[in-house]
Parts: sequence; structure tokens; C-alpha cells
Amino acid sequence: MPDFAGGRSALSLLPVDADLAPLPDVDHQRVVFEDGMLLDCGTVLAPMAVAYRTYGRLNADRSNAVLVCHALTGDQYVAETHPVTGREGWWKGVVGPGDPVDTSRFFVICANVLGGCMGSTGPREEMTDPATGRGLGRPWGTDFPHVTIRDMVRAQAKLVEHLGIKRLLAVVGGSMGGMQALEWAATYPERVFACAPIATAAHHSAQNIAFDEVGRAAIHSDPAWKGGRYWEDGSVPAQGLSVARMVAHITYLSEAALTRKFGRRLQGAKALTFLEDVFQVESYLRHQGSTFVRRFDANSYLTITRAMDYFDLAAEHGGELSTAFQNTATRFLLASFSSDWLFPTEESREVVRALNKAAANVSFVEIASDKGHDAFLLDEPEFRQTLAGFLRGAAEKLGV
Amino acid sequence: MPDFAGGRSALSLLPVDADLAPLPDVDHQRVVFEDGMLLDCGTVLAPMAVAYRTYGRLNADRSNAVLVCHALTGDQYVAETHPVTGREGWWKGVVGPGDPVDTSRFFVICANVLGGCMGSTGPREEMTDPATGRGLGRPWGTDFPHVTIRDMVRAQAKLVEHLGIKRLLAVVGGSMGGMQALEWAATYPERVFACAPIATAAHHSAQNIAFDEVGRAAIHSDPAWKGGRYWEDGSVPAQGLSVARMVAHITYLSEAALTRKFGRRLQGAKALTFLEDVFQVESYLRHQGSTFVRRFDANSYLTITRAMDYFDLAAEHGGELSTAFQNTATRFLLASFSSDWLFPTEESREVVRALNKAAANVSFVEIASDKGHDAFLLDEPEFRQTLAGFLRGAAEKLGV
Repeated sequence: MPDFAGGRSALSLLPVDADLAPLPDVDHQRVVFEDGMLLDCGTVLAPMAVAYRTYGRLNADRSNAVLVCHALTGDQYVAETHPVTGREGWWKGVVGPGDPVDTSRFFVICANVLGGCMGSTGPREEMTDPATGRGLGRPWGTDFPHVTIRDMVRAQAKLVEHLGIKRLLAVVGGSMGGMQALEWAATYPERVFACAPIATAAHHSAQNIAFDEVGRAAIHSDPAWKGGRYWEDGSVPAQGLSVARMVAHITYLSEAALTRKFGRRLQGAKALTFLEDVFQVESYLRHQGSTFVRRFDANSYLTITRAMDYFDLAAEHGGELSTAFQNTATRFLLASFSSDWLFPTEESREVVRALNKAAANVSFVEIASDKGHDAFLLDEPEFRQTLAGFLRGAAEKLGV
Repeated sequence: MPDFAGGRSALSLLPVDADLAPLPDVDHQRVVFEDGMLLDCGTVLAPMAVAYRTYGRLNADRSNAVLVCHALTGDQYVAETHPVTGREGWWKGVVGPGDPVDTSRFFVICANVLGGCMGSTGPREEMTDPATGRGLGRPWGTDFPHVTIRDMVRAQAKLVEHLGIKRLLAVVGGSMGGMQALEWAATYPERVFACAPIATAAHHSAQNIAFDEVGRAAIHSDPAWKGGRYWEDGSVPAQGLSVARMVAHITYLSEAALTRKFGRRLQGAKALTFLEDVFQVESYLRHQGSTFVRRFDANSYLTITRAMDYFDLAAEHGGELSTAFQNTATRFLLASFSSDWLFPTEESREVVRALNKAAANVSFVEIASDKGHDAFLLDEPEFRQTLAGFLRGAAEKLGV
């Protein structure tokens, strides 16, 4: 077995505003590609680091690797305690020993996306001189080039090659992770035996772009953002990023989930009073906003939401989605959740129709759930069973 | 006929940031109640001004008056060119000569809500000393007391009394205007012959409260808000108010309306580029946000959204909505729009069920529309015909 530990980050997280508790300084496991990579925007990013985590053991013929792709604000710590927040892995119950993505059977890889802020090259990492590849002693910030979902996938492909894996047993991801899974199947069909895009779409809807734009406007309008140069004095555009997180968080929940969680219950009061912060839902959202800024970089948020907004798999293939999957041998599982209004079932069906048109092997399930988009991260037994069965079937087919 | 012109505002609009074109200085038609009014929060607001406009002629027996209640960011200029923005009346096609609320047949009254910023007493108006009633030479700002939907309705009732009208032929309103219509019927049943609450609900949902909270957080986090004291140096929390407007605007539209208007069409570009502001929907939202700050006061926005969030007609009546309408003789028309996800049809049905339980005279229609919540303001022939028929029927019953 090769040494998969890779290089270690030299850059620490940037200092955080005095009002916020400092984040622990973390050296993320990563591999650095000195020759870098050509991005869709035409820029060569060199060197390029990909931070990642692996779980389980790669088998002798290297046929049991499953790549998990994370969503907008996720990262590579999918199945372990997060080194920054101290919280459990973000896909608990889905990735782990005995779980659908079974780390006692599969070799599971999860990488921080390009443009992210947990060790992969992104706005928070040290900017390099394109001519010499040498560090410039300052973060990329808003000078970080625009990246696409396809760029993220190409960077992961380099990691997978680095790990000596020719074909992935499966690529699995939800939300923006599902976009990456679709992009994997379209860009590297011969390297993806099975593909499970969950709660996702082949393009971002006008409404989703609009909500992202509100988040970006909130960050841009925070004077602490300083035109993206907040890293110069170690400040954090906490207010703007917090508002962005609040609005996004609402879109992750269904009305039923919000009502069940909070309804109109008042925060510590028996009757209507006129104090601020009186509704529990407000208090909850403010908490969501303020904890988020402790772990996420504002310029990364801008970079990644923009990548999601630009994602349009059909447009990459002459405007016809089925062309993206022409002659594919990959087997697909699409899953949506009935109360998800960010990535509604109809958008999964659109992908299924394209796959059918391409005569692909595809199964599709809409999971009944009232938990909204968040359902893909939560305890949904039917989803877990469906995904487990799909991966088991793929593994058996390959004799893993 | 009495002189309905009322007093004129002594306070002009507050100065606007140098970056924004100055607003025209407008003297709104208004009546000032020197004795003021006791608010739900226990404060007496004295004096209290109500700015209003009327259209058409009050008939001899004063039986043809229709009160129109405006929504969150509306005002009294329902059926004429707006003196500040120069745009046409906000309910064009619904209120006017020959329209459903027919100004050639009815005497139509529309008042700026208490807490508003078009001449009624609110955060932008001159603060008064509660003991002496004398002006303090500064605006109320965040010292303006909390107001409720019921307070808004009580203030309108004082106006209606002032106009010498004992009973309204009808109260009509959409969105927050519908909340006021419901509150009118519950608080003054003997003064409302017919009531048409449109695209509304008897309480604000958890999701709606959450979206409002995002808007308020955006305003609070704008340093130019200055804890609500932006009027001191004539600045405007334009960024925060603009973000608040952007997020609210998304909730007014359906996904279909957004897609039809903009889809993923690019702003002045044939292919994907990486310029900022590249999607038309983003450009549109930014425009919505920036024009809004020219006409609306941030502290009013905070005051009025808070009133909407507190609105809970059942809670005002022991937790049982039907009690609000017990023994009512008012006839009701409820209307919702099929793609409205801010005030979905189910929330109108909840009111209809309560009215049925109270044995009220009620009809209900869900208008098929893909225009979202905004549909109530737009050209929807079926809605217009339904409302016209309802008001004509009420008028004939009263021999108007």
C-alpha cells in the first residue's frame, strides 16, 4: 500500500475576529500537485493541494473505493469527529462501519472541494505566483480564480489517480455533492462503476441562484468583508456570512420541519411580549449564523456558491442532458425527498429522463419525508436502505 | 360633505445618503388625532397621525365606503401616481373606475399603516413627548413603540369614524392587507358588511417569520443602521435594507415565475463567463433592492415585519380561530393563488374552516396561477372577476 497521508498544510487558518472564539489550528491531511491543473476559466492553478480523508482499507485489486462528495458547506470529515468544530462526521448513519457506505467493506475517500476552506487550495490558502509557483505570503482571497463543479471533479480525479485507483466502485453525494457525482459520471464514465446523485439537479434553478445571490449580497455589503481583503487585518465578515447562512438554512428545511421544530413557540415567554429575539426560530437561525462563521471562510462561500450557480451539465454537452451520459456503462441511483423545495423531485426526474434517453442503467426513488432538503443528511431509514442495497449490488457485481 | 383633506405633515422625509438620489419632499394628506390611541403594548401614542387617500365620492347615506388595506411595503397611493416614485398605483386593475373596487361606484379609502413611512405616525415621523404631546425635534426611530396588526386596524377605524362612516361596505386587502381585513372583521364585526382577505393567513408561518428574521438581521448588521439611529446623520442603511428586500422579493415569486422571467439567461452574454452580476435574476434582484431603499424606511420595515410576525388571530381569541368570528354577520370572500408559497392555499382554507365553524357566510376560491404570491397584485382575470362579483353582490344587497 502506498502512503496516503500526503503533504501537510503549511498555512494555518486565518486569525478570527476578537469577538469570536479562535478556531483550533488544524493541519489537514493533503496531497499537493506541484504541476497543478488547468481550470475551466483558463487559469492554471499550480501548485494545487487537495485535502482529503480516507476510511477503511483499499483491497488488493483496488476495486472497493467509494468517493463521497460533500455539499456547499461540508468538507472531508465525513465520518469522524471534526477537528475544528468537534462535532461528529457530517454523514453519520450513511458513512461508517455497517452503514450504507460501509467503511468496513469499502475504502471511502472524501476530499475538500477546490475553493473550499479545509485545506484544499482555495481563497483562504496561500496565493502562489503563477509563473514560479512560489507562495506570495498572503491568501488568495478574491484573487482566487473562478472554479466550476467540473474543476472540483478534475481535482478529485487527480487525487484518485494519486491513490492508485483506476476505477471507483461508486461516487456518492448529496446536493452539491450530487452535482459532482453527476459530473464524475459525465466526465469520467470509465472510472465510475456506480453513481448515486442524491437530492440534486443537473443545473441550479433560478430560485436557487436568487437565494445564493442574496447570500453573496449580504457578504459583499458587510464592511468587514473589505472587498474580499478581510484577511489583511485578520477580521471576519461575520455579519454578512451569518445572514447568508441564515437564508440558506431556511431553504434546507421544509415549512413542516420549521413548524415542528419551532412553530410559533416563544423563546422563554408564556405570552406575546415585545422583546427582540422572541421567537425560537429566530434564536435558532441566529445561532446557526453565528456558529457558521467560526468554521467557514466568506470568500470560499462566494467561490463555491458561484460554482453551483454556473453548474449546467446540459450546457456543457450542447444543451442536451442525455448527451452527457451517451454510451455510459455506469449504473445510477437517483434519490430525492418529497418535501425538498431546494432540489425538488422534478429536478431528479429530469436527470432520470436524460439517463433513460441515453439507455443507462438507472433506478430512482422519491423518499417520503417532511424534513426538506436537509433530509439527505438526517436519519431517513428508507433512503439508507435504498443506498445500502444499491452499493451492495454494485459491489457484488464487481466481486468486492 | 366634510373636508376630508385633514392636516398636513409638518415633518418631511429624512435626508437620504449622498449615494442615493434624493427623494421628493411630499406632504401626505393626513388626519391628526390629538388624543392619540392606546396601543396593544400599553403605550398611548398621542398625537397620532393617519395618512390616507380617498377615491370616488361618498354617497348621501354613507353606505358605499370600501377600505383597502395595503401590504408590508405598500402605502395609501393605491389608485394614483405615487408622489415619491412616480409609479402608477400599486393595485392597478383592481382599484379604479370600472375595476372590481370601482371608484366610480364606491368611496374608496386607503390609509398608510401605523408604523409606516408615508405620513402615518411611525419611526420616520417626529417623536412626541408622551406627557405633553409636543414634538421633540427628532424622529421616533427605534423608540417607536411596537405595534400590532390590531393597532393598525384601530387607527384605521378612527379614520373611518373621522370620515363620518358608521359601516364599511367592504374591507379588502392582500397579504398583510388581508391580515388587517381579517382583524377588521374580528374587531369591528358590526362595521364591516363584507370582507375580502386575499392571499393571506390568520397567522404568520414559522417559515415566514424566519425569512423576516433574515431581513431584520440584514438591517441590524448594516453599520449604517447605527442601532436604529441612522437619522442622526442623515445616512441610510441601504445595504441591509436592500438585502432584506431581495430575500423578501424571492418569496413573492414562484419558481415558475422566476424561471420564466429569467431562467438561467445570462446578462448580456452569450456563453458562461465569470463576470459578477452575470445572471439576469441577480441583476434584477439587485435593482429591486436598490430602488426599494429610495422609498422605504428601515425602522418602518423592522416595525411592520414584527407586527406581521406577531399576528395570530386565534391567539387573540383564546386559541380558537372560529371564536374570532362568532355570530358574525359579515360576508366573506377568501382567495388564494395556487403557486403562492408565502401564503399557501392551505392557510386560507384554515380561515375558511374557522368561518364555517362560526356559521359565517363565506365563499372561497383558489385561483390557478403560476405567479406566486405576487399574483394578487398582477393581472389575474379570474381573481378580478371574482372580487368584482363579490363586491357587486354586497353593494346590491345594501342597495348601493
